[in-house]
Amino acid sequence: MKVICLQENLKFILNITQNIIGRNLTLPILNNVLLQTENGRLKISSTNLEVGINTWVSGKVEKNGVITCPAKVLANFVNNLPNKKVELEVKNNTLTIKCENYKANLNGLPADDFPIIPKIEEDPLVELKSGVLRDALLKVVGAASLSESRPEITGILFKFDKRELKLAATDSFRLAEKIIFETNKKSEDVKSLIIPQKTVQEIIRALGEKETDVRICLSASQILFDGGDIQVISRLIDGQYPDYQQIIPKNFSTQATIDRSELLSIIKVAAVFSNKTNSINFSLNNNELEVLSQDPELGENKSKIAAKIQGKKIEANFNYRYLLDGLANIGTKQVFLGLNSDSSPAIIKPIGDESYVYLIMPIKAN
Amino acid sequence: MKVICLQENLKFILNITQNIIGRNLTLPILNNVLLQTENGRLKISSTNLEVGINTWVSGKVEKNGVITCPAKVLANFVNNLPNKKVELEVKNNTLTIKCENYKANLNGLPADDFPIIPKIEEDPLVELKSGVLRDALLKVVGAASLSESRPEITGILFKFDKRELKLAATDSFRLAEKIIFETNKKSEDVKSLIIPQKTVQEIIRALGEKETDVRICLSASQILFDGGDIQVISRLIDGQYPDYQQIIPKNFSTQATIDRSELLSIIKVAAVFSNKTNSINFSLNNNELEVLSQDPELGENKSKIAAKIQGKKIEANFNYRYLLDGLANIGTKQVFLGLNSDSSPAIIKPIGDESYVYLIMPIKAN
Repeated sequence: MKVICLQENLKFILNITQNIIGRNLTLPILNNVLLQTENGRLKISSTNLEVGINTWVSGKVEKNGVITCPAKVLANFVNNLPNKKVELEVKNNTLTIKCENYKANLNGLPADDFPIIPKIEEDPLVELKSGVLRDALLKVVGAASLSESRPEITGILFKFDKRELKLAATDSFRLAEKIIFETNKKSEDVKSLIIPQKTVQEIIRALGEKETDVRICLSASQILFDGGDIQVISRLIDGQYPDYQQIIPKNFSTQATIDRSELLSIIKVAAVFSNKTNSINFSLNNNELEVLSQDPELGENKSKIAAKIQGKKIEANFNYRYLLDGLANIGTKQVFLGLNSDSSPAIIKPIGDESYVYLIMPIKAN
Repeated sequence: MKVICLQENLKFILNITQNIIGRNLTLPILNNVLLQTENGRLKISSTNLEVGINTWVSGKVEKNGVITCPAKVLANFVNNLPNKKVELEVKNNTLTIKCENYKANLNGLPADDFPIIPKIEEDPLVELKSGVLRDALLKVVGAASLSESRPEITGILFKFDKRELKLAATDSFRLAEKIIFETNKKSEDVKSLIIPQKTVQEIIRALGEKETDVRICLSASQILFDGGDIQVISRLIDGQYPDYQQIIPKNFSTQATIDRSELLSIIKVAAVFSNKTNSINFSLNNNELEVLSQDPELGENKSKIAAKIQGKKIEANFNYRYLLDGLANIGTKQVFLGLNSDSSPAIIKPIGDESYVYLIMPIKAN
């Protein structure tokens, strides 16, 4: 193999591919990237057996070939080179990297031992802009469960529904749903898939840095996010995602419109006295939101802000962290808060944007 | 006590005072700050028994008084308040904080149990600008030893010498010296003090944020850095600082002028293959600096950059981390490198700035 490409391009691609690589002691080849020439370009791949990434760098291929070598070492070396032409040459399982007066010989491993990243050749289910996908995923990814006791909610639901793509995640204490209305979905078929949280984090990172079109393709047990020069391929999570839509309330006995930044402040202030339960008390009445919190050792907080309130007086306790998580995904100046009782789900939504909803379960008072 | 002050001012001061507070389980009052009125202002103090900080906030004192309360909780609460007037009121060992519609009651402890921060009333040894002091301390503080086996080099040397203030730190592998030429030192007396590294880090943080005049005053076993509204008081380290000046070479068999950013790049690139010893090999000859590094498992690097070299051909091994630390303290475009042998100290200096010198011991080849 002999390939010449620009340091900047190589650096960009290596930092994307090495991201999913941990420190694998039982299968050391997983610490490596696979470099190979393909149709006049350099292809670089990585995998952790759950997610795989393929990337392509343009450059000049002078001789075809293939090698695998330690991802972190290669990326560290290339990161610190000047932004000039880099020459990569393979001889006897050694990768020689030259750039101006910098030169390294990197010990490689035979490419035959590198795990195969599945190929998906099916037609795309849907195609959308990387920026739109990234922003939507960011709004739900944090709500997925971290506990393996219910594997189906450790992933993000992708529901291809008529012309829309619905994304949802929950850990049973809170739930986030984001709808991408504008896709160029080809069929009206409904299809539901569960994608691991780590894969979604990888898509956010790998496909979010460059504005491009992303095609989503599906095989029996794998999904492909194809951004042209960057592909993310992942296994799917088996199982039935809970029918969450039935628990999202549509009507509320109390609903409030609140300034988002004031709401953030009052929650953060109350959090200081929320003790180990993270619990803070919301009380809505007379166009005022009062927030109480108490810690037997430290002291107590009682703060209030103005709110436009319709409906009856209500009180409920919330985990302040879940409230902050939800508000972090809302960019509008005003926020909608809807409640029905101190033990049924409450809703936070941006005002004037029907694509996002965040549901939060109150903490039951003892 | 009843005091009214601006949130912004109180926040600034609380974040400085709480910085030295850890999580002390044996003496819980050390987790607290002391709030007291003093000459019409609010004084806030903290101590970890090694370093103490006094700060003053202007505001309106409506009633004199004193209390201590948990530093982190108070700072967290105040940080999240709007930038409006804050009212602090003490009743029965409870501190009530009010700001617009925000209100908290914070449980305090009696002020009598708070450790006394020593007072230093001596005339200042020297007075200088906080920015000048901060920049100088930043250039030496990282070189102090972290090992307690030789306590005297765990601190930073302050040598008040004629009209100058010399600062030095070493861990016996490398040494940094910075001279502040322009002080308004009153006497020509020579006085050497050793100040704990943590105190110096505190001075950098506490006194660096606001341009002010800093007076340095001395008692028998304590030193005071007095920046007006902010004071840092610290114990001194006993012992005799090594006579380091005799080991800084003045003449060199080889000396080179090198572009700083190129030197940084070549060291970082070589570091990738430096293995566990962090050792990289410098070779100076024919107006070229060649850097070699080798890792039996990963591979090897051989890179070179142009350098203006006078004197004989020379080779030496260095710990790349120490080289990077030294270069990080040099801001000039060109750097001087002076060597005498592969086992005697080398020197890095900014070109055109005689106030700073960084000495580094080569690693002996096996």
